[in-house]
Amino acid sequence: MAQTVGFIGLGIMGKPMARNLLRAGFRLVVHNRSRGPVEELVAQGALDGRSARGVAEAADVVITMLPDTPDVRAVVLGPDGVLEGLRRGAIYVDMSTISPVATRELAEAVRAQGGVMLDAPVSGGEKGAIEGTLSIMVGGPEDTFREVLPIFQALGKNIVRIGEVGAGQVAKACNQIVVAVTIQAVSEALTLARKAGVDPARVREALLGGFAQSRILDLHGQRILERNFQPGFRARLHHKDLGIALETGRATGTPLWATALVHEVFGALRARGMGDLDHSAVARLVEELAGLGDAGPQGVH
Amino acid sequence: MAQTVGFIGLGIMGKPMARNLLRAGFRLVVHNRSRGPVEELVAQGALDGRSARGVAEAADVVITMLPDTPDVRAVVLGPDGVLEGLRRGAIYVDMSTISPVATRELAEAVRAQGGVMLDAPVSGGEKGAIEGTLSIMVGGPEDTFREVLPIFQALGKNIVRIGEVGAGQVAKACNQIVVAVTIQAVSEALTLARKAGVDPARVREALLGGFAQSRILDLHGQRILERNFQPGFRARLHHKDLGIALETGRATGTPLWATALVHEVFGALRARGMGDLDHSAVARLVEELAGLGDAGPQGVH
Amino acid sequence: MAQTVGFIGLGIMGKPMARNLLRAGFRLVVHNRSRGPVEELVAQGALDGRSARGVAEAADVVITMLPDTPDVRAVVLGPDGVLEGLRRGAIYVDMSTISPVATRELAEAVRAQGGVMLDAPVSGGEKGAIEGTLSIMVGGPEDTFREVLPIFQALGKNIVRIGEVGAGQVAKACNQIVVAVTIQAVSEALTLARKAGVDPARVREALLGGFAQSRILDLHGQRILERNFQPGFRARLHHKDLGIALETGRATGTPLWATALVHEVFGALRARGMGDLDHSAVARLVEELAGLGDAGPQGVH
Amino acid sequence: MAQTVGFIGLGIMGKPMARNLLRAGFRLVVHNRSRGPVEELVAQGALDGRSARGVAEAADVVITMLPDTPDVRAVVLGPDGVLEGLRRGAIYVDMSTISPVATRELAEAVRAQGGVMLDAPVSGGEKGAIEGTLSIMVGGPEDTFREVLPIFQALGKNIVRIGEVGAGQVAKACNQIVVAVTIQAVSEALTLARKAGVDPARVREALLGGFAQSRILDLHGQRILERNFQPGFRARLHHKDLGIALETGRATGTPLWATALVHEVFGALRARGMGDLDHSAVARLVEELAGLGDAGPQGVH
Repeated sequence: MAQTVGFIGLGIMGKPMARNLLRAGFRLVVHNRSRGPVEELVAQGALDGRSARGVAEAADVVITMLPDTPDVRAVVLGPDGVLEGLRRGAIYVDMSTISPVATRELAEAVRAQGGVMLDAPVSGGEKGAIEGTLSIMVGGPEDTFREVLPIFQALGKNIVRIGEVGAGQVAKACNQIVVAVTIQAVSEALTLARKAGVDPARVREALLGGFAQSRILDLHGQRILERNFQPGFRARLHHKDLGIALETGRATGTPLWATALVHEVFGALRARGMGDLDHSAVARLVEELAGLGDAGPQGVH
Repeated sequence: MAQTVGFIGLGIMGKPMARNLLRAGFRLVVHNRSRGPVEELVAQGALDGRSARGVAEAADVVITMLPDTPDVRAVVLGPDGVLEGLRRGAIYVDMSTISPVATRELAEAVRAQGGVMLDAPVSGGEKGAIEGTLSIMVGGPEDTFREVLPIFQALGKNIVRIGEVGAGQVAKACNQIVVAVTIQAVSEALTLARKAGVDPARVREALLGGFAQSRILDLHGQRILERNFQPGFRARLHHKDLGIALETGRATGTPLWATALVHEVFGALRARGMGDLDHSAVARLVEELAGLGDAGPQGVH
Repeated sequence: MAQTVGFIGLGIMGKPMARNLLRAGFRLVVHNRSRGPVEELVAQGALDGRSARGVAEAADVVITMLPDTPDVRAVVLGPDGVLEGLRRGAIYVDMSTISPVATRELAEAVRAQGGVMLDAPVSGGEKGAIEGTLSIMVGGPEDTFREVLPIFQALGKNIVRIGEVGAGQVAKACNQIVVAVTIQAVSEALTLARKAGVDPARVREALLGGFAQSRILDLHGQRILERNFQPGFRARLHHKDLGIALETGRATGTPLWATALVHEVFGALRARGMGDLDHSAVARLVEELAGLGDAGPQGVH
Repeated sequence: MAQTVGFIGLGIMGKPMARNLLRAGFRLVVHNRSRGPVEELVAQGALDGRSARGVAEAADVVITMLPDTPDVRAVVLGPDGVLEGLRRGAIYVDMSTISPVATRELAEAVRAQGGVMLDAPVSGGEKGAIEGTLSIMVGGPEDTFREVLPIFQALGKNIVRIGEVGAGQVAKACNQIVVAVTIQAVSEALTLARKAGVDPARVREALLGGFAQSRILDLHGQRILERNFQPGFRARLHHKDLGIALETGRATGTPLWATALVHEVFGALRARGMGDLDHSAVARLVEELAGLGDAGPQGVH
């Protein structure tokens, strides 16, 4: 593989992703705001790009993995940013979770510079990033997608091209809606069981055998029973993602009733100091509103 | 098997359930308000109990499968009802979906008559009833549960004793919460995709590979894409079931935020003449509120 | 005035209402479950009816003022109840806040007994009951309404015949919807001000001068600023009343989105032990969800 | 009065406001994107500033009255904008309804330029702008407020200084919350009445006499009965304003439950092509969800 891959943003998700690219044999140039993770990866064989621009100058495919829309904007459009260094014909892939509207604007700027953009947000959390089992939802031209596919295959398992640029972020917003609202549903159900004097662990078990089955009921349901709210995926990040979903709803004329409600639930979690717990801590809020204290782990079968 | 089973309520669910009991070799006595289904089952080997009381007089285990709380109350407590005929030591099993509060009252009345009651609501719909693959959520004494287990095994596959009497209905209420709210979540997500110009079929496919996976996203998601709103499970019945969940919430002091919202969604479906569509028609309402007409089936991959 | 008025239910509301009837010169026969208030009123000139039936036997117009639907049902339809004593041609007036559906059933039973029923729920609380300034919303025949009007005039000021029997309760349900949802609105607004570092007292003052003006913003807004949550009107009663509104919504096919949400807010108040505070304590819940403790009275201008 | 006032933004609100300043005797310099309203005002005695910068160069107090946050940002910070022309010691007053967060940023930029900013959003609509009866909610230093007060008095009646800069916008957001949620409340109540077969006009009349009284029930309630949905205040603008309120909620950690719900209601109005109706058209959506067509005007008493 002669391709050089640039990777900007070596946080909880980005660092293990970059490592998986190294392991897969890609030539890798990296950059990160703080130096620690850069040095770690350089010690493992990566090159130091020194800036977003430096990374772009050296790479055929530039990847960003950053916290939020303003971060991506700054790294791409800002001084010493990706656009200043991007080669003609190069590919820029944003794997952050950001606004689909902003994504389309960025794609336009990349195209004006002679490049092509894919958006490719992921699902699967730190665990998926480490194990290379992320789900990747991709927007952008079909042929560019094919070109980048080997890179995606080093990072994830369930890789779907959804449509044109921005479509990956739309799919991710949809994903975050379904996950959040299902957590709310499971939280209400298990809280009702507790308040009715019924063992929530048995209820979960029974529901897993029928139409109510979901990965959320399985995994987050188990977390709720065990009172295991260590992230996982932080409530405050899910709050941010629901904000993106609602913004997309506003931009496209889509009222999102349950999403709006659960967005406020996550807002309350943050306001009450639980924003750094796992998003399954929604159950804590539902329980508090039902007058329940934290009972500790429930008998788990 | 020497046991005689009584079965009252031969509707869409009850008739195939009774037939499965016959096939499993149980001696069966039946009753139904309208005569047609009784004659059908008698032709297949069942006995005609002539009234709820008649059924109870002849049976070791009496099962009811009726639409709603007042129906069960009338059949059990009313004139010529189950209680008038129930043998000492007999078992009464209600497999309808009714209020947990009413269930506990009925259990008390049965006990006063020298019998024992189980509540054993089911999930899985007409298909599950016909194929004998229902999920059955049981409340009542452990030993009574064991005694009735062979009967349940002729009717379903995933059979869980949840706890004391009423616990089956609580579990069912939890099930209906999770199913309804998840349908709402999937409807919002797929509608957002459509409004954003993204293929909802691809979004569903991508989401099925990650944390958003659920049977609802799989099966009801497919229905929504195909515009296949023939029941299945009717929206108006799910509306009723959410009413039971909210009533249980009120009785136990459990605020149910998303459930309350989705209950109004189902209410709107009924008010707009869509109550006899499948509950996945929630998506139709979400789409209407987003200004979308019925687009016909979406490209399904 | 030759009319004899019967009055059943001498609670917080009923006792001062009965006293106002005495003062207005009506011949009064009373009954109450506990004896204390009966003796009090007898000392002031009322007669002791000894039972609901006894009251009905003695009265031209029988009034009930009771907590909830089951209470009214029991007192009217139960043994020794109103129906057993009601004279032909007598008028039965229920001034409790109960279900419109139940009201229509009761009216039918009264009519079968040769009587006529009005429903006449009130608004204005204990203060209005004492001062004789209640708002009274009346359902029932126009001529019966005219006949009873002098009695109503001894009890309240704003007396409106809304329509046929049950219409009074519908209007009361509407009233409770508007009051509850407006309290929620005011609570969110004043909490947003506090969290944004802006004096909520000034905000209230400014809003009172424009389209946001309401008695709730004025009176309950003031209570919220002063942290004066002594009832007034108890949150748990308003929760009950919203339950009636939602039940009426269900029976008539009317989705009530904000009402359903605020019903859960009141449910949370009760579950968290605040059910006996004034309904303006909704603000406490909204504040808690925003991570605010009880700050004590705000600077009030 | 020696003060020269600059006025930028001569739309539905701005034009009559500028005219009132002329009438009050202020020396007025104006600017607007389209030329028509400028020429109209020049004919009435105003000076043509030719650009935002031109207005600022000529004025002691510069006022903007623009549709949304990006418009104000562009006019103040953009090329040929207010900041380029603002005199040292001059006062900049934004009377638009925009984000409190953006307001604080603008105030910082103005201060860096040697000026002082007030935010002074208004309530009262076109009618209030024409008649000079607007409510004005002001944020900024007390002495600057006093200095500008004569200008405000030419424009409105209920003028309250809420607090430091941004506080006016916070109060306006609070106002828009209370108004929107109260419209929802009134819509649910009157729809419930209709569906229950009760005259909504009588219900409104009865409720106006009690705790449910509000200007919204009075004025918007009347509109709903008369099916008079000509604006007034457009639903799409109220949708925008609730977006600002929710953004402020997010920025300050304030979950806004009912506001979030009603924001989606307004979103649905827009998505269904009713965004240019008066905001009281919320009732149309509530009615549609209850299966009601547009019945035409209701009997109004």
